[in-house]
Amino acid sequence: MSEAEYVPPAVWTWDKANGGQFASINRPIAGPTHDKELPVGKHPFQLYSLATPNGQKATILFEELLGAGHAGAEYDAWLINIGQGDQFSSGFVAINPNSKIPALLDRSGPEPIRVFESGAILLHLAEKFGAFIPTEAKGRAECLSWLMWQMGSAPFMGGGFGHFYHYAPFKIEYAIDRYAMETKRLFSVADRRLGEARFLAGDDYSIADIAAYVWLGNLYRGEAYGDAATFLSLHEYANVGRWVAEIDARKAVQRGRMVNRGQGPLDQQLRERHDASDFDLRTQDKLEPAES
Amino acid sequence: MSEAEYVPPAVWTWDKANGGQFASINRPIAGPTHDKELPVGKHPFQLYSLATPNGQKATILFEELLGAGHAGAEYDAWLINIGQGDQFSSGFVAINPNSKIPALLDRSGPEPIRVFESGAILLHLAEKFGAFIPTEAKGRAECLSWLMWQMGSAPFMGGGFGHFYHYAPFKIEYAIDRYAMETKRLFSVADRRLGEARFLAGDDYSIADIAAYVWLGNLYRGEAYGDAATFLSLHEYANVGRWVAEIDARKAVQRGRMVNRGQGPLDQQLRERHDASDFDLRTQDKLEPAES
Repeated sequence: MSEAEYVPPAVWTWDKANGGQFASINRPIAGPTHDKELPVGKHPFQLYSLATPNGQKATILFEELLGAGHAGAEYDAWLINIGQGDQFSSGFVAINPNSKIPALLDRSGPEPIRVFESGAILLHLAEKFGAFIPTEAKGRAECLSWLMWQMGSAPFMGGGFGHFYHYAPFKIEYAIDRYAMETKRLFSVADRRLGEARFLAGDDYSIADIAAYVWLGNLYRGEAYGDAATFLSLHEYANVGRWVAEIDARKAVQRGRMVNRGQGPLDQQLRERHDASDFDLRTQDKLEPAES
Repeated sequence: MSEAEYVPPAVWTWDKANGGQFASINRPIAGPTHDKELPVGKHPFQLYSLATPNGQKATILFEELLGAGHAGAEYDAWLINIGQGDQFSSGFVAINPNSKIPALLDRSGPEPIRVFESGAILLHLAEKFGAFIPTEAKGRAECLSWLMWQMGSAPFMGGGFGHFYHYAPFKIEYAIDRYAMETKRLFSVADRRLGEARFLAGDDYSIADIAAYVWLGNLYRGEAYGDAATFLSLHEYANVGRWVAEIDARKAVQRGRMVNRGQGPLDQQLRERHDASDFDLRTQDKLEPAES
């Protein structure tokens, strides 16, 4: 191929053949593709998700809330297999019209409330329980700023760098350079902040940390996008490494990262979560690996 | 060039020559490049920004608040020329360590509070004044969900589609296809929502609309990325068009879109804003076009 001579048409049309690894689940049209209701469990919160970084934000916060004694945060976590198009069911779209995980149905009040986008779920739950978000004005503003920073950054790390470096069907130097630079810049931003403060919003661990940790942590540990940690020289960001290690050690984080995981070693996955005791059962036969 | 054979090196290194139109302002390293303090005016809020879509979010909300009678929302808006690297000054980085506009210094309380990321600024101000965000739980969750949807979407529209379709030094078919599809999907999501509700969060205009409008509106009107509106067949999204027209007509929006605009027709720009009367002066000689 010779990209240099490519001239886009006047009007773009959908060529289903040109979508890379995610061609089957990327569409230019919103809305449901099939009718199917979502399951509903016994708890106040119904989470429909998958253990991607964005999915883990929600399950980590639920586990943190339960671990901190907020018994009202009990939740059922249902696995949405995005490779099989579960996110395009009528039931899922009714809760998240954007067809992305995680999606939450909050049934703790007088009427059910839908919440979609991982950042909104974090904020909704933190406010509801008055936890993992600073209460004074300055700390709250700092937490919201870093939370929004993460929401606006992840598309460059995941949809940008991760896609072009690891998932795209061929390597495009310009795109890899573009997103490698931005991903390193984002690590540098976090590293400077974590050199002056223990956590992103200040002295206390907050939803801003949960949001950023799932992305930065996976990359820093070398668990995302092949050898991306080497490619990006992530060992340079020692403050990020200190912070990742501290959050890695939290029991609630370890539990949260397992939920809705349908692949990998059996002792690190829990396809669905309906009770705290489910973590003890995770190696039993009833928990079969998912296909995704 | 023959992209098909490109093999990334084991370790990425910064090649300053390969950055496209924004090479001079894209860096893999955070932090200040030079010492310079920011100017500070007389009002409670000091905004450091530029009339890009993200910058306009903040100025539109300030003008909406003032228009709704919230006199405490008076602000000084200072122009940050990102083409000249103003966002890398020590003063700017102290307010936004991510070196992006808009950045806000809230001096309305006992101690100054920094707020960065357009979504955080919108939420901070809406909460402070109790305006443009629903107060009941369901509406608030809907507003937060759509606000976060926008924050996570813009990088695909701007940094993705806009970059590869319009700004990149050459056209890459795969990248244009990828982001054209996603941009159309996002328009489709908004169009479906605006077919069932007057505004994104429901019956009332909110910060979720302000956040999405600046991006969707510019694209829909054909004012972004050359002939992108034709390329993406944006006329298909009639509900978005109805909503854009309704918001276009708001006087506060018209004022907000002018602020920190340093190019284009003189009667549509206001490089700095320090008083409501500044809008009346905008065609006078003292307002020279910026270089950016």
